[in-house]
Amino acid sequence: MRNLKLTLAYDGADFSGWQVQPDRRTVQGTLAEAFARVTGEAALPQGSGRTDTGVHALAQVATVNSASTIPPGNLVQALNDVLPPTIRVLLAEEVPLMFHARGSAHAKTYRYRIMLSGICSPFLARYVYHHPWPLNEATMMAAASRVEGEHDFTSFAAVDPERAERIRLATSVGCSTTQTTEQPSPGREPCTNLRTLFSSHFARQGDELIYTVRGNGFLHHMVRNLVGTFLLVGKGKLAAEDIPRILGARDRSANPGPTAPASGLYLVSVEY
Amino acid sequence: MRNLKLTLAYDGADFSGWQVQPDRRTVQGTLAEAFARVTGEAALPQGSGRTDTGVHALAQVATVNSASTIPPGNLVQALNDVLPPTIRVLLAEEVPLMFHARGSAHAKTYRYRIMLSGICSPFLARYVYHHPWPLNEATMMAAASRVEGEHDFTSFAAVDPERAERIRLATSVGCSTTQTTEQPSPGREPCTNLRTLFSSHFARQGDELIYTVRGNGFLHHMVRNLVGTFLLVGKGKLAAEDIPRILGARDRSANPGPTAPASGLYLVSVEY
Repeated sequence: MRNLKLTLAYDGADFSGWQVQPDRRTVQGTLAEAFARVTGEAALPQGSGRTDTGVHALAQVATVNSASTIPPGNLVQALNDVLPPTIRVLLAEEVPLMFHARGSAHAKTYRYRIMLSGICSPFLARYVYHHPWPLNEATMMAAASRVEGEHDFTSFAAVDPERAERIRLATSVGCSTTQTTEQPSPGREPCTNLRTLFSSHFARQGDELIYTVRGNGFLHHMVRNLVGTFLLVGKGKLAAEDIPRILGARDRSANPGPTAPASGLYLVSVEY
Repeated sequence: MRNLKLTLAYDGADFSGWQVQPDRRTVQGTLAEAFARVTGEAALPQGSGRTDTGVHALAQVATVNSASTIPPGNLVQALNDVLPPTIRVLLAEEVPLMFHARGSAHAKTYRYRIMLSGICSPFLARYVYHHPWPLNEATMMAAASRVEGEHDFTSFAAVDPERAERIRLATSVGCSTTQTTEQPSPGREPCTNLRTLFSSHFARQGDELIYTVRGNGFLHHMVRNLVGTFLLVGKGKLAAEDIPRILGARDRSANPGPTAPASGLYLVSVEY
């Protein structure tokens, strides 16, 4: 049995996110079907994390166990021959059996593209968030730096009562409250909303304002909620100085920032 | 009554071409619906030409008569507010009543994008023709130059028996057999397959081979058939020297070149 690491790019616009769901066209489900056609094996490739409906990936990573002996280079070609052109396998590599796309990840980078031009090109409509209204980019840049470092990001996470209860129970029975990347348990969710952002910044590129964030892990909707909050700062409805207070509240309802649209978000890379 | 000239960009992937058709989502039909919503007028904007299913436009031009008094700048914004993001009105201008998007056009430029990389980015799948096999680009460049000038392009036109019969009848009753851009009759089809290509060339841009052609008019499928034929030259199945012979035959069946896929084709500009 081999453990295969697949690096994937996809246009998320036509998919109901990464995770397989009944009667929905998902990236994971489509990849599993392609894998079955090529290898004859029923296996569900495990991703480094779930991307939501409409979210794109430049280099998502998935692992899958396989008894097939197809050389990795041929597997890339064979999978791409049967996958839709909006999902591409960029690389296939054999990795140690203990390697797991999610559990072994040390860092991830996301990017969010905000198109500022008055008219958004029809060729970018699926690939950016169009925001043709004035923004104070300097205050947004200041706000972005305020989330760097280790913080409890509950105020920037999607509200998920079940997950909150799991964390409460796990913590009460002695689960570590800091995420560790040593000896990761494959697929296990960290028992805390503490995450470390190594960098968080905006850069202007032509008509686009691009947010790039690199961290050791991300909660559900976290990047889109960060961007939604920074946009409120850019509109003058929040100040950069409000960010530490919002973080400190550890409560999504203390954060007036909306979830920014999925179309602008890209999973850029996963580091191991 | 005003005559309005609209300049439009669209991603053709989700449309059944330009021309309005019952029960199909077309660019012209979608634009007419938006125009009706904004002005309250039932009018069918007339394009500079039809683009086929999947063909894109960077600057298609359409004209429409209107009794509305909405200033052109406001009309751009109002139309874009109700159009899908894959169609954008870039510009609206008031033009003389005798101006017609098709009849007044002096020249058009088309571009065709061929992606040569082994793996095509999922973000370009809708926007290029992916051709990851070897091509002799030098012979393609030589072939492209062989179609410059005035020629009968029947060998590069979609076979349309009805249109051929119309041309035969029109010619027999004394219709001019050369296309004229003076005193154009709005919407009238030229009575000949003679067209002049002012330039026709390939250029390499990174992983893309890009064909650009500028001419005084184009027959149905003409650019895609030119590209399909040049690709046969690039594969060594035809020589650049075969192009004059194929042109001279004035017969589509004398041309082994297939119609290249729509996804790579862009209407770049229309000159008046």
